[in-house]
Amino acid sequence: MWRMTEWDMAPAQRLELIEQCLALGVTSFDHADIYGDYGVETLFGEALALKPSLRDSMQIVSKCGIKLLSAKHPSHTIQHYDTSAAHIAASVETSLRALRTDYLDLLLIHRPDPLMDFDDIAGAFTRLREQGKVKHFGVSNFSRHQFEALNRRIALATNQVEFSPLHLAPMFDETFDGLQDLGVAPMIWSPLGGGRLFSGGDAAGERLRAVIQRVADDVQRPFASVVFAWIMQLPCRPVPLTGSGRIAAIAEAVEATEFTLSRTQWFEILRAARGHEVA
Amino acid sequence: MWRMTEWDMAPAQRLELIEQCLALGVTSFDHADIYGDYGVETLFGEALALKPSLRDSMQIVSKCGIKLLSAKHPSHTIQHYDTSAAHIAASVETSLRALRTDYLDLLLIHRPDPLMDFDDIAGAFTRLREQGKVKHFGVSNFSRHQFEALNRRIALATNQVEFSPLHLAPMFDETFDGLQDLGVAPMIWSPLGGGRLFSGGDAAGERLRAVIQRVADDVQRPFASVVFAWIMQLPCRPVPLTGSGRIAAIAEAVEATEFTLSRTQWFEILRAARGHEVA
Amino acid sequence: MWRMTEWDMAPAQRLELIEQCLALGVTSFDHADIYGDYGVETLFGEALALKPSLRDSMQIVSKCGIKLLSAKHPSHTIQHYDTSAAHIAASVETSLRALRTDYLDLLLIHRPDPLMDFDDIAGAFTRLREQGKVKHFGVSNFSRHQFEALNRRIALATNQVEFSPLHLAPMFDETFDGLQDLGVAPMIWSPLGGGRLFSGGDAAGERLRAVIQRVADDVQRPFASVVFAWIMQLPCRPVPLTGSGRIAAIAEAVEATEFTLSRTQWFEILRAARGHEVA
Repeated sequence: MWRMTEWDMAPAQRLELIEQCLALGVTSFDHADIYGDYGVETLFGEALALKPSLRDSMQIVSKCGIKLLSAKHPSHTIQHYDTSAAHIAASVETSLRALRTDYLDLLLIHRPDPLMDFDDIAGAFTRLREQGKVKHFGVSNFSRHQFEALNRRIALATNQVEFSPLHLAPMFDETFDGLQDLGVAPMIWSPLGGGRLFSGGDAAGERLRAVIQRVADDVQRPFASVVFAWIMQLPCRPVPLTGSGRIAAIAEAVEATEFTLSRTQWFEILRAARGHEVA
Repeated sequence: MWRMTEWDMAPAQRLELIEQCLALGVTSFDHADIYGDYGVETLFGEALALKPSLRDSMQIVSKCGIKLLSAKHPSHTIQHYDTSAAHIAASVETSLRALRTDYLDLLLIHRPDPLMDFDDIAGAFTRLREQGKVKHFGVSNFSRHQFEALNRRIALATNQVEFSPLHLAPMFDETFDGLQDLGVAPMIWSPLGGGRLFSGGDAAGERLRAVIQRVADDVQRPFASVVFAWIMQLPCRPVPLTGSGRIAAIAEAVEATEFTLSRTQWFEILRAARGHEVA
Repeated sequence: MWRMTEWDMAPAQRLELIEQCLALGVTSFDHADIYGDYGVETLFGEALALKPSLRDSMQIVSKCGIKLLSAKHPSHTIQHYDTSAAHIAASVETSLRALRTDYLDLLLIHRPDPLMDFDDIAGAFTRLREQGKVKHFGVSNFSRHQFEALNRRIALATNQVEFSPLHLAPMFDETFDGLQDLGVAPMIWSPLGGGRLFSGGDAAGERLRAVIQRVADDVQRPFASVVFAWIMQLPCRPVPLTGSGRIAAIAEAVEATEFTLSRTQWFEILRAARGHEVA
């Protein structure tokens, strides 16, 4: 939902989009305190307030730990992190108020903070669960080892990381191997490379696009669906997010659950993404 | 045995080489389904069929998981990996038929596959062991963390990796430290840098060669024996492979078990290999 | 104490410095067999011999495992490592004699040695503890994984690593995360970048110096105290060393225990050190 402030929708339109998502089986909504200059949660909450009964049919994810420069927060004189127990607790209170709900389904630490104290964070999480304010916990953009250090203190439900044919790092830097090892599914942000997969880019990007399109033609599925399927086929079972406000685009993501690529097709996309054969 | 197809030997000559190896105490023969364009296992099996009683005196290693472009496999339209349980089982059947034996002593996954499912592989391995078709299991070219993830599911006997004075990565990227920690000995492929240690190369390569030769002169051992000894002295107890079909070359590898280098000599070779002193 | 040979002090002056340190609450003295061309331990021992009763008020740290080129050791024809059990035991004997004491509080392996055998080292450590010659053990310049491999065999008290605003690696390469995870505090060498933080350097170095100075002005503390405070605020609780022989400089390190920086100040120094904002 991080782009919701850009969509310029009235509350009723936002509610309509939410209901269309739910009808498609898309029931998780991904937030962060900072999205839309600290504004998205409020927009979502306004829509939810029009039909509070929807709350039980959805899972709300939010994040905390980044402090952005913002006119709304004049005390922030530098972009930085705060993963102190006090900030985590305060951030959840603000998110709950903005979202017009009394609990989050999932709370993530947004970025690994050099000052994070694993025990403090686990303590803050435990108190939030005891208070009924957050049901599950996770992290975002953590390395394998950071994930495992916190996960030893409190069970984590996910690590939300960037991954796409344009950003392969988690497949080769232990992140996905480590999550598969623990049986934890990553959430994926920017699975379509922030839209760059569709247009623009250099010659390498065009070659990649052509290969994905050819596979899409072969399996007679939309281009975006092929990318989502390519990601979801990984053995750590990634759950890609979509940042779109168009229900048609969201439907293409859902369509990826209806088919799988052959290994040949899968490696054709990998080869195009890396620019070389596997060894 | 990966170059056996290049040696142009008649079956009886291959048998002679095998018997000479056994006489030297070299009893492990390293194969892969793909070696020699999917041909080496058959050549070895033809030789073994001339004297099947040798089977009990040797250990046969093979590998699976890579699908090469080959006239013998027109369905392979791209070089890729397949570590599915079905492919592992099918590959072992093919290897056993080609090798004219009813079991492998050791089966390795040839390369880490982005699509590998640790549980599936462990399941496939377990079934092969129960069927008596494979006695032990391992991997090749795996990172420390990939090794440990699979090793948590089924005990692995080795990680076969590239290492030589021309390729030091496993000594500094956790691979050897991790294996020592677990008490697992790596197998080493290309311990002589695919022959590049003996000739050619740039100025750095020549300096390295000169240092190894000086040490060889000091200890009065063959050049290749010094390299093998240098490798085997590592605390993870590496087992180097030789890719040679010349029995004299194989004997030089065996000779490396008869002496050790001083720490001074060992670090002289390391310094020449890295081009700088230790810190 | 690694620069003690450069200070050109008489034994009584060295004793005075030691007593001034103790009066400030600085009770740990960091040595290595090799410091000052194998000379520092002897200088320290001469001073201690003037007032042996001080021994109980201090902790003496030493290290072993490096063999330097030195006129005192003509057998060393190349700079190299030796972490064999025999060398560890012999090095401790030499250190004890030079330091005029019958025990070390802490013994560190100075550098990770490609030939180190984790079991052998743990065995050597265990014997030294049983003999009462060394109370605690640790390592220096080890990676997270090397630390953990040895720590599984014998409990380690620290990993002494280089860290400063000019050398951030341990904060991002798992070293600090791993130590925090285990509850082990690192010791920090060159916390002031070997003095380079104070003067010289390129434009980036000057910008960093200006930011630290501004923070120092804000909190009304010495420049060096701010750097020490910045380091000690990390959640792995680092213990910085000072290499100075001036008691005023040592007092500035101690002053860092009296205040903490705000998160804003802490991240201003991090941004200046890296040259970019956090993500």
